[in-house]
Amino acid sequence: MAKLCFGSDYMEGAHQEILARLVETNMMQTAGYGGDDFCAAARERIRTACRTPHAEVHFLTGGTQVNRTVITALLRPYEGVIAAETAHIAVHEAGAIECGGHQVITLPHEDGRLTAHAIERCLRAYHEDANRDHMVRPGMVYLSHPTEYGTLYTMNELEAISAICRANRIPLFLDGARLAYALGCPSNELTLPAIAHLTDVFYIGGTKCGALFGEAVVFPRADTVPHFFTIVKQNGALLAKGRILGIQFDTLFTGGLYERGGAHAVAAADRIRTALAEKGYTLAVDSPTNQIFLLLHAEACAQLSAAVEMGFWERRGTDEMVMRIATSWATRDEDVDRLIALL
Amino acid sequence: MAKLCFGSDYMEGAHQEILARLVETNMMQTAGYGGDDFCAAARERIRTACRTPHAEVHFLTGGTQVNRTVITALLRPYEGVIAAETAHIAVHEAGAIECGGHQVITLPHEDGRLTAHAIERCLRAYHEDANRDHMVRPGMVYLSHPTEYGTLYTMNELEAISAICRANRIPLFLDGARLAYALGCPSNELTLPAIAHLTDVFYIGGTKCGALFGEAVVFPRADTVPHFFTIVKQNGALLAKGRILGIQFDTLFTGGLYERGGAHAVAAADRIRTALAEKGYTLAVDSPTNQIFLLLHAEACAQLSAAVEMGFWERRGTDEMVMRIATSWATRDEDVDRLIALL
Amino acid sequence: MAKLCFGSDYMEGAHQEILARLVETNMMQTAGYGGDDFCAAARERIRTACRTPHAEVHFLTGGTQVNRTVITALLRPYEGVIAAETAHIAVHEAGAIECGGHQVITLPHEDGRLTAHAIERCLRAYHEDANRDHMVRPGMVYLSHPTEYGTLYTMNELEAISAICRANRIPLFLDGARLAYALGCPSNELTLPAIAHLTDVFYIGGTKCGALFGEAVVFPRADTVPHFFTIVKQNGALLAKGRILGIQFDTLFTGGLYERGGAHAVAAADRIRTALAEKGYTLAVDSPTNQIFLLLHAEACAQLSAAVEMGFWERRGTDEMVMRIATSWATRDEDVDRLIALL
Amino acid sequence: MAKLCFGSDYMEGAHQEILARLVETNMMQTAGYGGDDFCAAARERIRTACRTPHAEVHFLTGGTQVNRTVITALLRPYEGVIAAETAHIAVHEAGAIECGGHQVITLPHEDGRLTAHAIERCLRAYHEDANRDHMVRPGMVYLSHPTEYGTLYTMNELEAISAICRANRIPLFLDGARLAYALGCPSNELTLPAIAHLTDVFYIGGTKCGALFGEAVVFPRADTVPHFFTIVKQNGALLAKGRILGIQFDTLFTGGLYERGGAHAVAAADRIRTALAEKGYTLAVDSPTNQIFLLLHAEACAQLSAAVEMGFWERRGTDEMVMRIATSWATRDEDVDRLIALL
Repeated sequence: MAKLCFGSDYMEGAHQEILARLVETNMMQTAGYGGDDFCAAARERIRTACRTPHAEVHFLTGGTQVNRTVITALLRPYEGVIAAETAHIAVHEAGAIECGGHQVITLPHEDGRLTAHAIERCLRAYHEDANRDHMVRPGMVYLSHPTEYGTLYTMNELEAISAICRANRIPLFLDGARLAYALGCPSNELTLPAIAHLTDVFYIGGTKCGALFGEAVVFPRADTVPHFFTIVKQNGALLAKGRILGIQFDTLFTGGLYERGGAHAVAAADRIRTALAEKGYTLAVDSPTNQIFLLLHAEACAQLSAAVEMGFWERRGTDEMVMRIATSWATRDEDVDRLIALL
Repeated sequence: MAKLCFGSDYMEGAHQEILARLVETNMMQTAGYGGDDFCAAARERIRTACRTPHAEVHFLTGGTQVNRTVITALLRPYEGVIAAETAHIAVHEAGAIECGGHQVITLPHEDGRLTAHAIERCLRAYHEDANRDHMVRPGMVYLSHPTEYGTLYTMNELEAISAICRANRIPLFLDGARLAYALGCPSNELTLPAIAHLTDVFYIGGTKCGALFGEAVVFPRADTVPHFFTIVKQNGALLAKGRILGIQFDTLFTGGLYERGGAHAVAAADRIRTALAEKGYTLAVDSPTNQIFLLLHAEACAQLSAAVEMGFWERRGTDEMVMRIATSWATRDEDVDRLIALL
Repeated sequence: MAKLCFGSDYMEGAHQEILARLVETNMMQTAGYGGDDFCAAARERIRTACRTPHAEVHFLTGGTQVNRTVITALLRPYEGVIAAETAHIAVHEAGAIECGGHQVITLPHEDGRLTAHAIERCLRAYHEDANRDHMVRPGMVYLSHPTEYGTLYTMNELEAISAICRANRIPLFLDGARLAYALGCPSNELTLPAIAHLTDVFYIGGTKCGALFGEAVVFPRADTVPHFFTIVKQNGALLAKGRILGIQFDTLFTGGLYERGGAHAVAAADRIRTALAEKGYTLAVDSPTNQIFLLLHAEACAQLSAAVEMGFWERRGTDEMVMRIATSWATRDEDVDRLIALL
Repeated sequence: MAKLCFGSDYMEGAHQEILARLVETNMMQTAGYGGDDFCAAARERIRTACRTPHAEVHFLTGGTQVNRTVITALLRPYEGVIAAETAHIAVHEAGAIECGGHQVITLPHEDGRLTAHAIERCLRAYHEDANRDHMVRPGMVYLSHPTEYGTLYTMNELEAISAICRANRIPLFLDGARLAYALGCPSNELTLPAIAHLTDVFYIGGTKCGALFGEAVVFPRADTVPHFFTIVKQNGALLAKGRILGIQFDTLFTGGLYERGGAHAVAAADRIRTALAEKGYTLAVDSPTNQIFLLLHAEACAQLSAAVEMGFWERRGTDEMVMRIATSWATRDEDVDRLIALL
């Protein structure tokens, strides 16, 4: 019997509906670079979902690419981006932000979340420093929802962070690589309209949320970055057959497919969390979305790993490790059953 | 009746075989970032086709992205890349190479081709210049095959350019965004093994040659650029679900699909070229591949454009313009018939 | 007897007055980074000379450094800088502008001068190009006064270029590395107030015009580039003991020393030009400032070079070469006499 | 009576000997860009002092400039530089390293010093991380001697760090902006030959150690970075009249002037330290060189600051602050007497 696989949320292809649309439209001839009707339709659906009729929407192919392109587009040369020290841009993007010329100013986190307090302290410290003209200016705030630890910001938290950014006139960027797993989570407070209202730019992740690949970058206010299209091109982030992205997002935002995929994954994760609790396992993080961080003794870890592929997260001390179980839009109920039986 | 469309070679989706494979493999679970079996199989097929058993093969998502990533990976900070003044990197990549820190050193072209003579003169001029330490060092040569004008290098020409590069110890990079249309062209002399033998890195274009998207970067000698994977990641060019690229190239290199698509397009273009000659049209460039550059008076142009979508290339004088007709792997015979009837 | 030396205009130290001031102020204690009284005084003198009471003035240490810092500060990532193909930034700055991320868009020149016509054509071509969103946007204009060929812009020419820049809302940057030799030239029409009026940023060269080193960057309108000080620091262009630059420019702009040094050099060059004309020499360029470009047969060149150090400029055909004779603020009359005797 | 000034070590001009040499050589004509005899002589003196006859020596104008130029020259795009979290490059260079494309990987410090242990742990963590190909590779180590806190590395410490770097084949770069104050310190163990032996590149600071400005970059092994001259030029760090730097370093390394200036400052600092100890003051750091970090209650601080200019370092809690007293090569004995009287 094949090994169970809960290693990540990008191990399968795409929702069947997406593939069906790609097959069905395959021989149609369309303009390139996102100038086609599918992209136009997808943009319109996203604007509607966000209640931002004038939003500017761009389709890119991956998360690191989006982060690099958006951040370098928004910052001036002397500015850096504030992020949690566990943020994807700080740790797992091979220095893409620095390669684009900017420092990632890392702050302590709470289960992956930035706090308004820490941001405010960082900004105040900069503005009060007599040597600030010799220092990197904090020029924007980056956060992820859900975070790297699968946790969520509350409405109060995002409002507080947004208020600080606006008071300091620096943009707020929300990385939604796993946004479906927030939107599909019962305890999530941040709807798309709320995010569009409180941030200056965010992206709706496709790659990890049911698309073959692709991310939709949303600027709630048009022309936030003049010539953003050219910046996308310059960063090698412009897909020639842009329609492939348009078709995918048009499908994901038809009939609630995007959120439904997320809800499916969260329900599966909830079943696993319940079983873990019943069996006395310890969680390293209290995360309500599709990622579960399990604290295991080395021995228990080796045993479980023999039957289930999990993601290695980190070592704690000499004997314990944190392993990640990720469900997704594609997780099969029978695999969840088998996993629970194994615990 | 719908307007005929010969505007470019990336207006349709992908070969049916590719879509079928994507559908068939959709729910399989695989490792990310190109570490899956499909990518491994595709790499092996490409190595076999190139007769380079030790070649390093990476799959990226688009041409500008490849050019930027490869060129910045190979150059040292003080180096620039030699290219034809009509080269894609010099004109239509929004300054991606400069954004990566490097000058594009442009040389005159012959129907899109660089000449060994011009390259040699450029290198000699640099080395003889008393101020060369204050100048950009020519650090690599970039060419396209087919070129931007649809023309091809002969074996003698590529050998001569390769010899100069090796004598000067600078790498030679061949952009094969439309390589299928060279390989499928009866007059083409440059096979994949010849290209692998004579260059230091090249890419096999998928986007314009029958894939949904994707380009295969081939380093004939492994470890030409240490940590190239990380450089790809840093440039936002690493696809999470790398298998989507692996599946496509595995399919394109099975049963000669890649070359067959190219040959189909060239045959269609040849039929159009014959008709144009018979009807007394003038070509702006003598190109043997899937692109035809037609010189038209403004009036004739307006008339033809009403019925056929072509690509605008350039204005010549006040009354004439060059229009591009591009066929592709997807061009339908009946569309060629209709076009010929319209001429 | 020592060889005569007319190789360049930066072969001596500095005006005696400058050294005297450095000695006299040596043990005074002052704030760093340009926050001292000498810099304040120098800024004020420059503002007065330019009739721009609100100008922002920064002192940097060299020309390439200024060009790189100013250009990267003014351009957005997708923009390039228009310059003559002979411009210093295009040829002799080792790719500093590209290293900062930007293309140098080179246009043909007339004896080193850009023309309003060529700039206008370039801007129109960009704006009319259907693919402009895939291209580098011309984002500023760079010119030198005097040019690399020692020639000068007329008032009409600079007004026309300035008008185009303003109509297109792109800044105009004037490189004044040798500005003293324009200001000291009888035929020069461009005063400091005119330059300040017609450009958005320019620099007053010290290194080649009588200072030990240093250039004064002038933004006629304050806050043209917010946080320019930090950009200077980031580029490694901020001198800790900024007063050394302040003292020099304060001295150069006291009692007309800056212009006087320029006039001295031009008078010396005029004497040489007269002698050359009388003796039937051919000039490669008709330049009225401190640089003389002499067209010589190889044999004559070798003979003259044995006694006089000149700058090699370029080869013309197989037998002729262009050699540069440069005078400076420090040129001694007896050396001019000796040179004339040798011709 | 004028306020006493102990704010920093770059508040005066230069050693009298340096000014005298500048005056004396002022009207000599020399080649530009460091190709003159003064630079040649200075390089030879430095090679002799370091006992590295083949060392490559370059003269640049400031510390941030050196750090940026050297670090970007040595790193590959995917690499970052390890530094203490208090390092100058991490805090006070306005993001110059990130602007050049590289992450500063900060480690905890011990009074400003990096530890071999922390470096080793960082390198091991990278090499053991399963995701290291998605991460910035630690590609060099940067340290300062003296550190930002005026402390010194012991021979054992530098040997241990050097051994780790060599075992990992990454270069070790020592920032010697204040090196004179180490060399002139009785407890310093690291001579120039030891530094040249244990590092791959270092610089001998002039700006803070008695020169008008300037830093000497030493590569103990020639051609460590091919074409470094061009990289210097590209970074805007090449002084046209390079001789001004050559004359200064030639003078500093004649008759031990460099070390003597350092010893003078340390002796002055020692007198102050003795007085502080006698009067019961608390030091924030136990530093043996020319910088003294004094812990003061707000009230005492305000009182002392009224009479003496000190550098503000940091706030500790709500009531205390750390103030820096810096002596230099130029500190006058009577000012030390006055300061001691004030304590």
